[in-house]
Amino acid sequence: MTNPSEPSETEQSNSAAAESPARTPAADLPVVAVVGDGQLARMMAPAASELGQSLRVLAGKPDSSAAQVTSDVYIGDYRNLDDLRAVAAGADAVTFDHEHVPLEHLRTLQAEGVNIQPGPAALENAQDKLVMRRNLDSLGVPVPAFAPITDSESARAFWEEHDGKVCLKACRGGYDGKGVWFPESIAHLEALVDELLAEDVELLAETKVDFVSELSAMVARAPSGQLQTWPVVESVQAGGVCAEAVAPAPGLPESLRSEAEQLAVTVAEQLDVTGVLAVELFHYVDESGTDRLSVNELAMRPHNTGHWSQDGCVTSQFEQHLRAVLDYPLGSADATAPVTVMANVLGGEADPEMPMRERVRAVWQRFPQAKVHLYGKDYRPGRKMGHVNMSGGADAAEVRRQAALAANFVVNARWDDGYTG
Amino acid sequence: MTNPSEPSETEQSNSAAAESPARTPAADLPVVAVVGDGQLARMMAPAASELGQSLRVLAGKPDSSAAQVTSDVYIGDYRNLDDLRAVAAGADAVTFDHEHVPLEHLRTLQAEGVNIQPGPAALENAQDKLVMRRNLDSLGVPVPAFAPITDSESARAFWEEHDGKVCLKACRGGYDGKGVWFPESIAHLEALVDELLAEDVELLAETKVDFVSELSAMVARAPSGQLQTWPVVESVQAGGVCAEAVAPAPGLPESLRSEAEQLAVTVAEQLDVTGVLAVELFHYVDESGTDRLSVNELAMRPHNTGHWSQDGCVTSQFEQHLRAVLDYPLGSADATAPVTVMANVLGGEADPEMPMRERVRAVWQRFPQAKVHLYGKDYRPGRKMGHVNMSGGADAAEVRRQAALAANFVVNARWDDGYTG
Repeated sequence: MTNPSEPSETEQSNSAAAESPARTPAADLPVVAVVGDGQLARMMAPAASELGQSLRVLAGKPDSSAAQVTSDVYIGDYRNLDDLRAVAAGADAVTFDHEHVPLEHLRTLQAEGVNIQPGPAALENAQDKLVMRRNLDSLGVPVPAFAPITDSESARAFWEEHDGKVCLKACRGGYDGKGVWFPESIAHLEALVDELLAEDVELLAETKVDFVSELSAMVARAPSGQLQTWPVVESVQAGGVCAEAVAPAPGLPESLRSEAEQLAVTVAEQLDVTGVLAVELFHYVDESGTDRLSVNELAMRPHNTGHWSQDGCVTSQFEQHLRAVLDYPLGSADATAPVTVMANVLGGEADPEMPMRERVRAVWQRFPQAKVHLYGKDYRPGRKMGHVNMSGGADAAEVRRQAALAANFVVNARWDDGYTG
Repeated sequence: MTNPSEPSETEQSNSAAAESPARTPAADLPVVAVVGDGQLARMMAPAASELGQSLRVLAGKPDSSAAQVTSDVYIGDYRNLDDLRAVAAGADAVTFDHEHVPLEHLRTLQAEGVNIQPGPAALENAQDKLVMRRNLDSLGVPVPAFAPITDSESARAFWEEHDGKVCLKACRGGYDGKGVWFPESIAHLEALVDELLAEDVELLAETKVDFVSELSAMVARAPSGQLQTWPVVESVQAGGVCAEAVAPAPGLPESLRSEAEQLAVTVAEQLDVTGVLAVELFHYVDESGTDRLSVNELAMRPHNTGHWSQDGCVTSQFEQHLRAVLDYPLGSADATAPVTVMANVLGGEADPEMPMRERVRAVWQRFPQAKVHLYGKDYRPGRKMGHVNMSGGADAAEVRRQAALAANFVVNARWDDGYTG
């Protein structure tokens, strides 16, 4: 047996490939390089494989979620320009599974001719919440009231102006509830601000929205301008982390659904977003009793609230992202079932004794229609380790109940409804 | 940047892994080793990735269809016992993407404790058509009349008995129309027989069935006995190669559908098949005017006539095959659309000038619902290079027309209906 990392005679010989174990990509089909090695990159790989393409991954470690299942892996640091340059060399497009790549590196690569989708000008809005708030506000997109917080005076002023309905956020680096604080008193707010500013954390304050529900409006946009929206979903968070997404959002009035979809299109077009964009929205009722929407967060990549599309939609968000960043025509986003529910598998307090494979067995034994997706990650409390998709008929509540039972069994090896079958 | 094929600290250190660039499989999830590196192994990889598993592949070359998109690749020869032993070491199950692995090697591995699914006793029926015919006949499964052909006398006798409606087959090694001959005269038959016997080709003769349609009944079976059938499909061959599959088979009377499904179950159970089984059937009308079924071929692996399940079914044949060989509970095989059509992308006379990526672009421009699957193979006349799946409403004829147009454009860069949009 020979080692497959030895180059074959037919292998491409550009300089980047020489540093990687890349196998020959299919004749003349495009190569997408993904910066990032988490579950989003992992889940792009099946889509790339089906399209006959090669997916290239810049991974921090060879055993990371995406590197486990792909062949064209570069080990490097997404903060290092040379590593970014190497993985980009010869790729048709460079894209991302997270929003933490330094913009100055992306601008340098762009100047060197690399095709970066989405580009740094758009990405800045996903990296810096203050930039995003200002840009959306100036576009007329509804956002909560906000202000930069540069000292305790500005914090106190914001608190008083908004009757203590305040959410404090780090401008950069937050995700899944990290970098977000809900101060309980003005003293608590001031203490937080003093502590965080001392750590050089840039801050903004926003009004805390008393929402009816959280929605996610997703759209894919190609560089040439083509757009394709997915059905608007309702998402449910637990401890700041997405726990569930229901497609389509149950009971959402058509006017709001259409407004949410249009907001996503506006944001994608006005911020020149390419690839998949998720616009996380609050649905709330204003003082006059009117239903309103307000933008919470943006993500410029496949998003947790779009995982349902893998099993409930003609074109999954992962395939659509690859098509969009390559400026291919976008696929149909028609649903393939009346309701599809995604329930996250989030690590609990402790990994149960029952081996994971036996938990999966039990879930399938009870629910033959459950689509189990695992990310190849070790158990850790709160960690996103996978998700379960389940489609069903018009009874969304029943599909939600079953998907939650399945996901919770994968986590806890226990049926929360007492089932013993 | 470091070379990712260097073992990481966390990498498993069993002897097989030491010979491969395998990355750490997810905690305690199973490893399936696939012998074979074609598109069937390639399409198992996305299913394995989604289930959090590691798919291991025994590939002949590092740039083969499956090796392009998987990380845990062993380069070796499926006819070599040591190579088979190496890829099997530590795997939870060994399975196949073709039926050409020597049975004596599989028996040896089984004796050494390797979990081989399907086992050699079942596989013999997929390797040797005479064995298959005899076994099915003895089970009461309808097959065409057949006889071993050991000399021109036996050939002549078969021809005369069946009024020249004769098909001559090699017992072993045929696929996609190879190893099958339709002699035009008794002299032609005798010449073929003399020539082939001189080359040590073992032969059988069968009656040529004047069929109404060809059907495929597919079932997955787990070692513990669980069974799950898919909807029976109609397949259309061109030059002995599958060109199209339509699910469900249009206009098939319920009695025949149920008989076809039951035949697949009987064959799976009686021959102790595990994993996916495809039973290719002739639907013909006998002398009394009665609709009848007769088994043409068996395949004990995912099959071309099951590719539609990737996009038209809750559980694809690739996921189901992995679940079945691991003795996991089987998934729902409910269809997700009224009709799904698979049209093969078969290399034509010459690769058109238009690059493949532009052909894909044109197909998606016209048909946003087209699911294009490419295998990473170079263009070669007649070669299976990919397929297009398309789902639609009740008008099967229209979906068939569109899927064929799309697949033919991928091959020829030409719309067969004159479309110029």
